[in-house]
Amino acid sequence: MTIAGGEFGLIRRIRQRMNYTGGRVVLGIGDDAAILTPPGGKLLASIDMLVEGIHFKKELITPWQLGWKALAVNISDIAAMGGSPLYALVSIGLDDSADDTYVDGIYEGLMAIANQFDVKIVGGDTVRSPKALVIDVAILGEAEAPVTRSGARPGDLIAVTGCLGNSAAGLTLLLQDTGYRQVTGRGQDVSRGQDIPPGQNCDRRQEPGPKGDWKRMEEESSWASELVQAHLQPVPRVAEGISLAGTGAVSAMIDISDGLSSEVNHIAEESNVGAVVYARDIPVSRALLAAAGAVGEDPLNWALFGGEDYELVFTFPSAAIDAVKEALGRSGGRVYVVGEVLPAGEGVTLVERDGSVRDLLPGGYNHFA
Amino acid sequence: MTIAGGEFGLIRRIRQRMNYTGGRVVLGIGDDAAILTPPGGKLLASIDMLVEGIHFKKELITPWQLGWKALAVNISDIAAMGGSPLYALVSIGLDDSADDTYVDGIYEGLMAIANQFDVKIVGGDTVRSPKALVIDVAILGEAEAPVTRSGARPGDLIAVTGCLGNSAAGLTLLLQDTGYRQVTGRGQDVSRGQDIPPGQNCDRRQEPGPKGDWKRMEEESSWASELVQAHLQPVPRVAEGISLAGTGAVSAMIDISDGLSSEVNHIAEESNVGAVVYARDIPVSRALLAAAGAVGEDPLNWALFGGEDYELVFTFPSAAIDAVKEALGRSGGRVYVVGEVLPAGEGVTLVERDGSVRDLLPGGYNHFA
Repeated sequence: MTIAGGEFGLIRRIRQRMNYTGGRVVLGIGDDAAILTPPGGKLLASIDMLVEGIHFKKELITPWQLGWKALAVNISDIAAMGGSPLYALVSIGLDDSADDTYVDGIYEGLMAIANQFDVKIVGGDTVRSPKALVIDVAILGEAEAPVTRSGARPGDLIAVTGCLGNSAAGLTLLLQDTGYRQVTGRGQDVSRGQDIPPGQNCDRRQEPGPKGDWKRMEEESSWASELVQAHLQPVPRVAEGISLAGTGAVSAMIDISDGLSSEVNHIAEESNVGAVVYARDIPVSRALLAAAGAVGEDPLNWALFGGEDYELVFTFPSAAIDAVKEALGRSGGRVYVVGEVLPAGEGVTLVERDGSVRDLLPGGYNHFA
Repeated sequence: MTIAGGEFGLIRRIRQRMNYTGGRVVLGIGDDAAILTPPGGKLLASIDMLVEGIHFKKELITPWQLGWKALAVNISDIAAMGGSPLYALVSIGLDDSADDTYVDGIYEGLMAIANQFDVKIVGGDTVRSPKALVIDVAILGEAEAPVTRSGARPGDLIAVTGCLGNSAAGLTLLLQDTGYRQVTGRGQDVSRGQDIPPGQNCDRRQEPGPKGDWKRMEEESSWASELVQAHLQPVPRVAEGISLAGTGAVSAMIDISDGLSSEVNHIAEESNVGAVVYARDIPVSRALLAAAGAVGEDPLNWALFGGEDYELVFTFPSAAIDAVKEALGRSGGRVYVVGEVLPAGEGVTLVERDGSVRDLLPGGYNHFA
């Protein structure tokens, strides 16, 4: 590892880059602790650790994307409470191959998403972790009336904010020996995917990505790059979460980190209810269907069990559908109703496209399985 | 790694153990984010990562001590601002040798110090980190008027809250091939250490350790176990920090993680001042002198450069000495004046016992050196 100026040189550079002091940050990076203006509403706090080889492979993600994603997954936790992200603390354990360029790349990715969502990075720790790169981000946010996982009631509708499965499909492409660029370049017949009966189509306006990404997306525009982008550079649904919480009608909310199936089961367990999800209503993108055709995968597997989409799953009384639609519309989003909350005794089930019913098991990734 | 019930089983057990919901914790572990009552004063936030092989060796620290220490070093950061610790978030990356007993040990150590300092563990992430155990703790606290590193003024006195060097001496004993128990048992002449001219004596009342430790300390009472304990189970100076901040006279404060030399240099740099430290005034314990004699080390090296003592270093106008003494006395502590703040041009120097003067370089541990 070659870090110019050693640990303290690195801290000095980080501090210059993240000098937020002023405004709600009384004192940022550089003292024993940051001094912050506390939020007016409730204080929200969460933490998420990414470990090389477990959560990412260095050969498949750029340092910029890694920094972006490490903070994105945390911002998403605040979004899932209907909150506004405010402050982040970032610990990085650098493996021995990390050099200045790599570390700067991570911090640039962190700064890009922090700026986009007005999050201030107010503290951190940078240490050696010779055997594996580790990034751990703690995030603080605020909400007047946070939405938990435990308020779903029988009769509520279950909905999501966008396309499911894109991230898992992107990961599949990345992990293929051939590499996703080759998949894209092989001239696969994109229309092949259309043979699989689609769910709701969820293609929407392009995301306002960080500067420079627009261009890249236009140049490389293809279903493969769309999916890979969804995996490597997820966009948390902050505005959507705030709008939904603002309706006062949303009874439970969670973000999709482990997969729709897992998240619906979490809501069911915490709310002590059952649930049914309809396969025909799950929103999938044209890109997902194209990839499914190309690699011979059922798109529903990706959409139900893939995870890392960071869309929101939420429940609300059906009478509030217009309010919910209007709220999501204001933040540029759409409501995709995918199921219904049932009494606890009904369990958690999936109605397949052919009408058959099966148990919907929490099939998300279990780290210790 | 054999974790009963897998990831979700582990989360369930942790959650049962850390069910703080009620009081200032609106909702603790188990949702996307914790929901907390924000502090009335300023919000303090810090984060610290410990990596196996860099910050600790598994064969030298029990999981209970590791849990204790991981949170202790963070609580100490809040103490250094004169704040009260409130909430902690704990990420643990478990290596493949970790089993239920090991993980439970870590959490029991975390809980022991959390309970002692009334810190609520409100969130966490538990993941696999096959190649090295990693613990990262984020802490939140509050203070009406936090004390930074940047307020020291020429003429201020520099003081510390207790014995320096004990932790480094304890580490030296632990790292010796013979092991510290053998050193203790070898019947070294403890009085040998007395040949080295002592600084201020700083032996004080025994710390109110967690239940059970009293007994162990009595049974094994010896200078070696005192030093090893100081290294493995440091006690952050929270009450002292709050008392000192409460005087309104303390101009700068920092905790000793890297060593007195480094910390005085940090204060000098951030406050844009110089400083002088007097070797004869540095508080050292009888145990430190005994160990120095036994292993042939200069106790001053440990006291100045060793680090991880987690005592506080602070500055204040000399006119406030009585107020500072009274404040520390109320929290059971003592003031050890070790030096003086000088104008910036004077640099940072050490006056040796023989009156000679040398530069006091920030000789603490530099992770990337």
